[in-house]
Amino acid sequence: MHKVPVGVLGASGYAGRELCMLIEAHPSIELVFASGNGQRGGTMRAGGREVTFVGAEDAPLDKAALVFSALPHGASLEWVERSRKAGAKVVDLSSDLRIGNGHADVPYGLTELRRAQVVGADVVANPGCYPTAILIALAPLLTAGVIEKGSTISVSAASGVTGAGFTPRPELLFAEISEDFRAYGIGNAHRHVAELHAMLRELGADQDLIFTPHLLPVARGILATIVIRLEQPLEAPLELWRDAYSNEPFIELSETTPSLRDVVRRNIVKISAVNAANAKHPTLIITSAIDNLMKGAAGQAVQNANLMLGLDEIAGLPV
Amino acid sequence: MHKVPVGVLGASGYAGRELCMLIEAHPSIELVFASGNGQRGGTMRAGGREVTFVGAEDAPLDKAALVFSALPHGASLEWVERSRKAGAKVVDLSSDLRIGNGHADVPYGLTELRRAQVVGADVVANPGCYPTAILIALAPLLTAGVIEKGSTISVSAASGVTGAGFTPRPELLFAEISEDFRAYGIGNAHRHVAELHAMLRELGADQDLIFTPHLLPVARGILATIVIRLEQPLEAPLELWRDAYSNEPFIELSETTPSLRDVVRRNIVKISAVNAANAKHPTLIITSAIDNLMKGAAGQAVQNANLMLGLDEIAGLPV
Amino acid sequence: MHKVPVGVLGASGYAGRELCMLIEAHPSIELVFASGNGQRGGTMRAGGREVTFVGAEDAPLDKAALVFSALPHGASLEWVERSRKAGAKVVDLSSDLRIGNGHADVPYGLTELRRAQVVGADVVANPGCYPTAILIALAPLLTAGVIEKGSTISVSAASGVTGAGFTPRPELLFAEISEDFRAYGIGNAHRHVAELHAMLRELGADQDLIFTPHLLPVARGILATIVIRLEQPLEAPLELWRDAYSNEPFIELSETTPSLRDVVRRNIVKISAVNAANAKHPTLIITSAIDNLMKGAAGQAVQNANLMLGLDEIAGLPV
Amino acid sequence: MHKVPVGVLGASGYAGRELCMLIEAHPSIELVFASGNGQRGGTMRAGGREVTFVGAEDAPLDKAALVFSALPHGASLEWVERSRKAGAKVVDLSSDLRIGNGHADVPYGLTELRRAQVVGADVVANPGCYPTAILIALAPLLTAGVIEKGSTISVSAASGVTGAGFTPRPELLFAEISEDFRAYGIGNAHRHVAELHAMLRELGADQDLIFTPHLLPVARGILATIVIRLEQPLEAPLELWRDAYSNEPFIELSETTPSLRDVVRRNIVKISAVNAANAKHPTLIITSAIDNLMKGAAGQAVQNANLMLGLDEIAGLPV
Repeated sequence: MHKVPVGVLGASGYAGRELCMLIEAHPSIELVFASGNGQRGGTMRAGGREVTFVGAEDAPLDKAALVFSALPHGASLEWVERSRKAGAKVVDLSSDLRIGNGHADVPYGLTELRRAQVVGADVVANPGCYPTAILIALAPLLTAGVIEKGSTISVSAASGVTGAGFTPRPELLFAEISEDFRAYGIGNAHRHVAELHAMLRELGADQDLIFTPHLLPVARGILATIVIRLEQPLEAPLELWRDAYSNEPFIELSETTPSLRDVVRRNIVKISAVNAANAKHPTLIITSAIDNLMKGAAGQAVQNANLMLGLDEIAGLPV
Repeated sequence: MHKVPVGVLGASGYAGRELCMLIEAHPSIELVFASGNGQRGGTMRAGGREVTFVGAEDAPLDKAALVFSALPHGASLEWVERSRKAGAKVVDLSSDLRIGNGHADVPYGLTELRRAQVVGADVVANPGCYPTAILIALAPLLTAGVIEKGSTISVSAASGVTGAGFTPRPELLFAEISEDFRAYGIGNAHRHVAELHAMLRELGADQDLIFTPHLLPVARGILATIVIRLEQPLEAPLELWRDAYSNEPFIELSETTPSLRDVVRRNIVKISAVNAANAKHPTLIITSAIDNLMKGAAGQAVQNANLMLGLDEIAGLPV
Repeated sequence: MHKVPVGVLGASGYAGRELCMLIEAHPSIELVFASGNGQRGGTMRAGGREVTFVGAEDAPLDKAALVFSALPHGASLEWVERSRKAGAKVVDLSSDLRIGNGHADVPYGLTELRRAQVVGADVVANPGCYPTAILIALAPLLTAGVIEKGSTISVSAASGVTGAGFTPRPELLFAEISEDFRAYGIGNAHRHVAELHAMLRELGADQDLIFTPHLLPVARGILATIVIRLEQPLEAPLELWRDAYSNEPFIELSETTPSLRDVVRRNIVKISAVNAANAKHPTLIITSAIDNLMKGAAGQAVQNANLMLGLDEIAGLPV
Repeated sequence: MHKVPVGVLGASGYAGRELCMLIEAHPSIELVFASGNGQRGGTMRAGGREVTFVGAEDAPLDKAALVFSALPHGASLEWVERSRKAGAKVVDLSSDLRIGNGHADVPYGLTELRRAQVVGADVVANPGCYPTAILIALAPLLTAGVIEKGSTISVSAASGVTGAGFTPRPELLFAEISEDFRAYGIGNAHRHVAELHAMLRELGADQDLIFTPHLLPVARGILATIVIRLEQPLEAPLELWRDAYSNEPFIELSETTPSLRDVVRRNIVKISAVNAANAKHPTLIITSAIDNLMKGAAGQAVQNANLMLGLDEIAGLPV
């Protein structure tokens, strides 16, 4: 069968490399170029194949039916436009076009929540890794209106270091990360807060969301721990998600709390929810785990591309 | 100068070993026995000296002016009583005598908050590691009455695996912990919740505290991330702690968020506090870091012992 | 198509679990039982399926065309015999029947070197992980007779901790292994030496082989670094292996030195060889890397089973 | 008491920072400047004190009685000369002046082997980390003449990543190092080989030494595993080292094989030696462990400085 030709811009970073590997293993799309300005001429192994990086300027955008842009935030927008002019659809993994950043016309590719808009789109803004884990977990609560009005949604999340990218910085060296753990972007200062808050507003929330990310000494994976106050006690809290996501192939619900190893190298969100004991006010603790490079980046990008190209949504995606 | 003789029960675990090392380096106390039932006859290096484990039954309790009990929860109480009968003072590192467990007469050795009671005590219940990090951070807020009445205090904390002890369990093997991260004891199910809630009540709090611990792939260290709603905005939040702890040698305040490597192998609590941006309700995010084996166990135990024995509170403790 | 039924004894350890996962993903065989005495009634996820452990006594040996025994050394032999009596072929992953242990009639399943014997066998002794990495690397040198007569073959190898098994021992706890590295079984004291030396003799070697294993703070993977003195200088040393293994799907040769991440989760041996500079005597340094759970255990076991069952040798094996 | 003023050039790297910490804790020397060109104006914590980096050009060389140069290889020599002109003694931690690099007049500061030359020296070349671990272990064997003439000394060694320096390179990022292990500089291509071979010649050796370094997923520590053929069997091999190093405070001999955690943060070399079983030719396996930043860099530099300044050799050094 003829495969759909796709290209990857910014293929030498962690998300870009993961994209190339997913594309190589995909039954219906094939890689026609992979750009990596800093490493042009260099190669990487993706599945059984060796991929050679070209400069972005040399990427044959017009040969691709769809371009994935894994370029850095700020640098991506220009290439989304160039790709569009060359006739390609685009999944943009940067934050440039995401909700909250002033591009209301571009669908926000949190697939399970925006499937209808993604299906017909020419450009999709792929969500950030943290927002994917958090919003998929929160959406059924917000839709059901069970969170106490005016309360605070407290989100503590931790990510593996691939979330910080492949650009070498001293603080990301092995000897700095090993045996350490820290919070960063404290006080709602993280880049993803705009995206989180914009989606909350779209979902009708009036609550504050306080987001504290942490840096883990692991390569990949995100775990978000969310505390909310309920309007009313909920007897079987997980039922909310079971109803909302009953037919979703990439959502996994669990009575036990998910761990990173449950989700690494899989395109899923794994969620659990538990009522707090010893609390005067009914309170729920939700944990949500993803692989930041899969459902948090490359996997969800392929999921969106599948829909944009009329392919099976689950094609080529490890569950 | 004559040194004060002390003994350690349960010396073969992580806290017990740390105690032996601190005692060896201490200028005014000396080790007269170290028990470790599972390893009796075995040895460990503590500083320059080799320590031989005896069985608890063979420990010369009457030779010690003070006994540290690092025995397991449930097994310690009996030995506290035996040590008292033999004439020794006791610092009990287990949870058996801690606040919230029905021994109101025994001072809770969170030293900075209970110094007066510790000074004259014959028995002190050394706090749990998580409560130490959390309560030292929360106390000034509670005393000042700045937390919104009836609100929820959300605490997400993560600990290195020495917090789970030296007893081999499959889920603590290197290959299970490396590259993983998970929450446990979700929904206020952790053993330390009783202690946390009891102290909150003593400090006059009416808020709920929701505690979610996580297991980190590091050997030692605890980081607690605390989100609270304020009654009123606070302009310079760190001032609260500066006032409360102005003369404390083991409290370190920081404009930047603390990381585990700031505190490991030191008997300190390092605290930072930041106001949330993009929040309708004034909200504070506090991070608090300790070494679970030092300020969270052996270090604080020595700090208490110093006071009980009339020694300098900081003697033998690494800052 | 009808799949061949197979069973796994000792399925709850690391090699046993890996076997179950490979079997689940295999196109031509299917799992009919998985025993795990310590965890009977417990479950594990293998690929998309949940596997329930039975006790070995309850395993329906007669339902399996082939049984993989991943039982501990010493405990396996009895079950190999029981399985044979029940009519099943057996791949024994323990050391009980391996070369050097007195069972000359049982083929030693180092597949690339013993393919002819494996094809027709009812029982195959699956090699140890270290010997697999070392002997596959050494065989072409020994066959070609290029190693200096009477010299010493020096092998320094390092393994991830899954090589030590899933049985909890204090020295394998995360906090003991992280940030550490050590040799063990020094002076040819390791259990695998018998197997190594027996195969060397079969391959006609008169040299001493000195084997020093080390324990790495990683979950999986083995790297062996081998130093040999040559009879004559070799201009293009890698050609030896290229000739010997020209059609082997599971041998990968490399001009650059292999690293663990090149081989993890793949059933391959990756080998490189470099001449020493600044040496009076011509000397070769060979490095050989495998995944100890794949080519070093479960992967090679399936490779052997494929041959014993008349299936495609590469069926179900990740390259 | 008046302390001796010293300076550190290149203080922002791993060895430089370790030097500043040792100096802060030293009873008889004090830090007068710390240069770090890339971080001038920045600060680091060294013990209880905050150190501010100056540019090297602004370092008051004439205020220091002794300068430690931890500048990169190639960049150090110029600053050694500038420091000498300013009247300071110098310990150079770079390879610029080491034996084998054409500066025969500069003592090679492997203290235990060159103490007499170091005592009166104005400039000392501090050895590399690997050579320290290897040569301290080999010297007694070479002096005693027990290694087989014309044989090959095979050295496999592994180092933590701080050995590769603080300069950010993609291959040293946490996500690249974690769960990996590899050899590098294979075939005697490592920079330290010149130094190793030059010292071997000085010690009268005619053997080849084949050195294979490996990169460990740990922050600090080096373990060298050395295989040698003996002229004659040795009954109690460790006696050789006991005789040679009987009064050395920084050499520790052990019947059991040393591990990294035995030596980390200590200025010692820990050595064990075992005869090979199952070998036709008498063969010895020696393991030698150091902390690459202590005895392998900053600690040995202070040890040398102590001698050069007429101080107690062990002053300020953790054993």
